[in-house]
Amino acid sequence: MNKVLLCEPNFSEGRNAGVIEQVTAQVRAARGVRLLDADSDADHNRSVLTYLGPPEDVLAATEAAAAKAIELIDMSAHSGSHPRMGAVDVVPFVPVRNVEMSEAVAVARQFGEFLGALGVPVYYYEAAATREDRRTIPQIRSGEYEALPAKLAEADWAPDAGPAEFNAKSGATIAGARMPLLAFNVDLDTTDLTVADAIARAVRHSSGGLPHVRAIALALQQANMVQVSMNLTDFRRTAIAPVMEAIRTEAAARGVSVARAQLIGPVPLEAVTDVFKHYLQAIDFSADQIIENALLD
Amino acid sequence: MNKVLLCEPNFSEGRNAGVIEQVTAQVRAARGVRLLDADSDADHNRSVLTYLGPPEDVLAATEAAAAKAIELIDMSAHSGSHPRMGAVDVVPFVPVRNVEMSEAVAVARQFGEFLGALGVPVYYYEAAATREDRRTIPQIRSGEYEALPAKLAEADWAPDAGPAEFNAKSGATIAGARMPLLAFNVDLDTTDLTVADAIARAVRHSSGGLPHVRAIALALQQANMVQVSMNLTDFRRTAIAPVMEAIRTEAAARGVSVARAQLIGPVPLEAVTDVFKHYLQAIDFSADQIIENALLD
Repeated sequence: MNKVLLCEPNFSEGRNAGVIEQVTAQVRAARGVRLLDADSDADHNRSVLTYLGPPEDVLAATEAAAAKAIELIDMSAHSGSHPRMGAVDVVPFVPVRNVEMSEAVAVARQFGEFLGALGVPVYYYEAAATREDRRTIPQIRSGEYEALPAKLAEADWAPDAGPAEFNAKSGATIAGARMPLLAFNVDLDTTDLTVADAIARAVRHSSGGLPHVRAIALALQQANMVQVSMNLTDFRRTAIAPVMEAIRTEAAARGVSVARAQLIGPVPLEAVTDVFKHYLQAIDFSADQIIENALLD
Repeated sequence: MNKVLLCEPNFSEGRNAGVIEQVTAQVRAARGVRLLDADSDADHNRSVLTYLGPPEDVLAATEAAAAKAIELIDMSAHSGSHPRMGAVDVVPFVPVRNVEMSEAVAVARQFGEFLGALGVPVYYYEAAATREDRRTIPQIRSGEYEALPAKLAEADWAPDAGPAEFNAKSGATIAGARMPLLAFNVDLDTTDLTVADAIARAVRHSSGGLPHVRAIALALQQANMVQVSMNLTDFRRTAIAPVMEAIRTEAAARGVSVARAQLIGPVPLEAVTDVFKHYLQAIDFSADQIIENALLD
């Protein structure tokens, strides 16, 4: 069974088409890697590439793109509305297929060593983090690029890879590994926003609900419904089906029901087969039984 | 989105390894085609190959393998325990991904013309059938190879392609298109076989149940359960989830419940995403959202 790792690096250039294209070209030219999306935002002055392939090929593509970005982007002249800290700003490696999180962490740290050797301070985040107080992007990026000289002078901000010295041209990079984020919305057959709000509170982790679930309530004016809009941040630990059933139960307790649900954007096959197995009580089902999977190997 | 068609031809040779290998080699060597399985049975004196790929490549591979089988297999010397009518006995083309049944039928008939031009009478079956009384394999294969001289002398048995003359070496071929067969078993938390039998009767088409469902009841001695063992012959018309819900309802009416379910063997991704959409009420979900699908295009 082949392995699929996804990478979604964020570069601090969203205006200069020539620079963006030269960075993107490194991924396009990389062996074994499929570029799924390239998105640039001029206001943010930031570009995000999304690509996937075997872990070793994804690592090589990411190294090539990052090296090109380090060469072409000068952070001392950068401005934009999105928080940022480095030319290669944030680099998440995401397990998609037959890849354990530990392997994604190993790739992230190999990438960190590579970038560190190019003179860029690198901080590891999420599953690759080395300290609890440096686990999230906001924790690490506090003060952005402009705060780096002062932070790097403190022992507490010694990077996980690369020199503990301010690099004016390249800034610093946040690299790590995380699960794919699932955007899951459930619409209720009521216009009463307080019901959606109560259900969102019941299921989200921050108010005592399910781990790895973020939720807010929204009114859907046109549809005459309300929505529980969620992010599932680790579907291997809290899968889609238990979240759906929690919402159905909470809705029933309030005399409403689920009208429909939506997954927005990309979903790993594993999350789909988890739902299949749950509702059919088909615990032995293997994704290897899916005919098309033969074409992936 | 690329297209995937599967083919599963049955050849009347299951003993001579040299012949089997020469036929199989045609598929292995074919461009764009992936051989999933090659199964030979000496008692049946029969081999089944399973492979898939783009429709035009699958057609070319099937033509090459059939031409080799026609060259090497002599039906006048054939014996075996499995019913058979020709060297190339049965050739089903099966839509797997982004292929409509009408396209699979067109491929089956192109294959029929090819084989007919080699002097083999060809009958079209299932979705490719031209007559209701020649829709199923048992209808067409009645009397087997030995009945062909008499049948081909009747106007009623004029083949759909190829000459209306007995071909002693190659016999005749049944070619057509059908949906993938899903083998779906549901186990009940009772040892009472009459309950499983009543549920099998309630859901199967032949006794007034759901279209495209065959079902029998079995005792699972070791597990202390009974099973409703089913074939779903057209999951686009009768999907897995409605069958599961019918069984849950029938079971509940008899005071028992479903313990577990199993899909045996290959399942198309479309059947898996249908279940996902049904139970999440996620009618807008598209298989294109599945990350791995990017690797199939």
